[in-house]
Amino acid sequence: MKTIIILGSTGSIGTNTLDIVQRFPEEFRVIGLTAGGNIEKLEEQIRQFKPRAVAVSTEASAIELKRRCTGLPVDIVYGEDGIARVAAMPGAELVISAIVGAAGLVPTLAAIRSGKHIALANKEPMVMAGKLMQEEARKHQVRIFPVDSEHSAIFQSLEGHRLQDVRRLILTASGGALWTLSKEELRDVIPERALQHPNWKMGSKITIDSATLMNKGLEVVEARWLFDIPESRIDVLVHRESIIHSLVEYEDRSMIAQLGLPDMRTPISYAMGYPERMPLDLPSLDLTEIGKLTFSKPDHDRFPCLRLGYESLRIGGTMPAAMNAANEVAVEAFLNGGIRFVEIADVIRSTMDAHAAREIRGLDDALETDRWAREKADALVHALPH
Amino acid sequence: MKTIIILGSTGSIGTNTLDIVQRFPEEFRVIGLTAGGNIEKLEEQIRQFKPRAVAVSTEASAIELKRRCTGLPVDIVYGEDGIARVAAMPGAELVISAIVGAAGLVPTLAAIRSGKHIALANKEPMVMAGKLMQEEARKHQVRIFPVDSEHSAIFQSLEGHRLQDVRRLILTASGGALWTLSKEELRDVIPERALQHPNWKMGSKITIDSATLMNKGLEVVEARWLFDIPESRIDVLVHRESIIHSLVEYEDRSMIAQLGLPDMRTPISYAMGYPERMPLDLPSLDLTEIGKLTFSKPDHDRFPCLRLGYESLRIGGTMPAAMNAANEVAVEAFLNGGIRFVEIADVIRSTMDAHAAREIRGLDDALETDRWAREKADALVHALPH
Repeated sequence: MKTIIILGSTGSIGTNTLDIVQRFPEEFRVIGLTAGGNIEKLEEQIRQFKPRAVAVSTEASAIELKRRCTGLPVDIVYGEDGIARVAAMPGAELVISAIVGAAGLVPTLAAIRSGKHIALANKEPMVMAGKLMQEEARKHQVRIFPVDSEHSAIFQSLEGHRLQDVRRLILTASGGALWTLSKEELRDVIPERALQHPNWKMGSKITIDSATLMNKGLEVVEARWLFDIPESRIDVLVHRESIIHSLVEYEDRSMIAQLGLPDMRTPISYAMGYPERMPLDLPSLDLTEIGKLTFSKPDHDRFPCLRLGYESLRIGGTMPAAMNAANEVAVEAFLNGGIRFVEIADVIRSTMDAHAAREIRGLDDALETDRWAREKADALVHALPH
Repeated sequence: MKTIIILGSTGSIGTNTLDIVQRFPEEFRVIGLTAGGNIEKLEEQIRQFKPRAVAVSTEASAIELKRRCTGLPVDIVYGEDGIARVAAMPGAELVISAIVGAAGLVPTLAAIRSGKHIALANKEPMVMAGKLMQEEARKHQVRIFPVDSEHSAIFQSLEGHRLQDVRRLILTASGGALWTLSKEELRDVIPERALQHPNWKMGSKITIDSATLMNKGLEVVEARWLFDIPESRIDVLVHRESIIHSLVEYEDRSMIAQLGLPDMRTPISYAMGYPERMPLDLPSLDLTEIGKLTFSKPDHDRFPCLRLGYESLRIGGTMPAAMNAANEVAVEAFLNGGIRFVEIADVIRSTMDAHAAREIRGLDDALETDRWAREKADALVHALPH
């Protein structure tokens, strides 16, 4: 029986995680949950999974939740501090870190510092402060298991092989919703179109990231820190079908890959159960039914965000955190109709150009960069002629 | 430094093995070689690699070789007994077993019984006496590393994962030289046509086996014993490009696969260097250059031999050995123009129909079945109207 805490329990990863807990009640017990504003769903989860404590974003949400949960044996706290306290509460072995965006950094670090292993579904902690995260993980002897399908694939393809024999990591990219559009067509893309991901059902922020290929840029940064491999040895391959989730090439030119139908429950359950695999009652991948798998090179002209990911790593220090913050602001502006699709990359690049990167010595450097870059990106968004 | 013996050093696997020894002289030293009739090549190998002992098939070859190698510090022996003695000679850690056909069984077993690890490139020992081979390997605490690209792929895809989590092994098949031919066209195929393998350059026996899909039938039997998995959990997938060399499906529906350009030096060097990988200076697999990978189901109507492999396992005991012997006779008859391509399967099936399978208690049961089935298949070949 593994005891777990889920940060971001009402989102896509959170609900999939609870789906697995429900399927394997002998294997997992949930003792803590945190969520943003979806109080109704959180109440359901409290009634079903009976956590000892939950945290929500605002005091108002906490008051509303307390009213709904009167009589239930659950502690309800709120705010950044409350979320970090639930992340670090004693008695859990594993924390599933699935809070979308930069907000996941502080509670994930709190979980690491309290000695819990991490199933990391949220890219931003590694993007904003990857080096720091790994140093803290080493210091507190905790393991970080990736949940992102690509990083889980690489993790699985490294298991049982020697790290010194690795030649390249190869992240696959579906190309997102807009891969087949011309540069001209991309100019007029509306959010509804960009949200139509071909293979994965995910939240809207990550679906837009997938359409810009910024998602792959963030994943390159994440892979660099998760696997301690320089960016020059991380490649990206466009693979529309999202069946090969990523690959590792070894020195003998042998590649190991992980494949499967696109279902987040596979990588989530692997991170949760490691080293055990859960007998998930999901459909098997039948390659004869799919018929063919295709591969092509990324197109940096139509989708410049991937290159920004590499560039942020080459510059290093706080630059990936600045890039990440600018991206969050730009994506939100695009979703709200504030900027065009092609301007997302412009906002990120201009923010990066204006940022004087410095070394990350502690959490404050990452958080301060995040604040600065949000303001900068926001100003850039508002300066655009719309 | 690993000391090795190569059984079948002048064949395709043998010369590739020596190519690796030559590339990594600090890693490997050859102390014994055995070969069939290619005395000229063996002489070259003796002069270059300086083994302590070599064995050849016949006394005449041994006399000729001694004449050529006068003054060289090498023991030259001959015959089945001589080959088995070289296979078991002291001082070697690893024996590369690459003698084509049934002739590999006795020396491979001799190597196991002398406590040497085996890099198994020859399917027949596992097909003829898989259970016995594994019992002896366990008893003498030796490991058997597969060299066949498919089994090496499965071996690599199992490393680091738990055997109890395995759901299926999936062997890929190129479909061989005749995959696109109709049933009618297959009737008139001449050996030269059947020998044109699309991806791999191999010996003629195995290339014909690939064209009939008997090769995959033999591989199913081999996989059953190598990995201790019942045949009901071994699948075959036609994959024309031979890039994914095989896959393992786990209980969580995750698949791990090994990929690479078709070059035997990758699986050979993995078996030789295990757990180290050799930094082979070979071209990298570029999936964008290949563009697509295709998959389809095996066609049991046009290529009935694959089913015979499964059937031999279901009947069990000596049946796979009978099937294997009948196949060797039938393939040879086809290559000599004695029977038609489509009659290879007929000869094997009729031999299997006539065979009363019994348990294999010792080497003699396998060898006796081999003899019986050769005679039977030979009689069937000669009874065909040509």
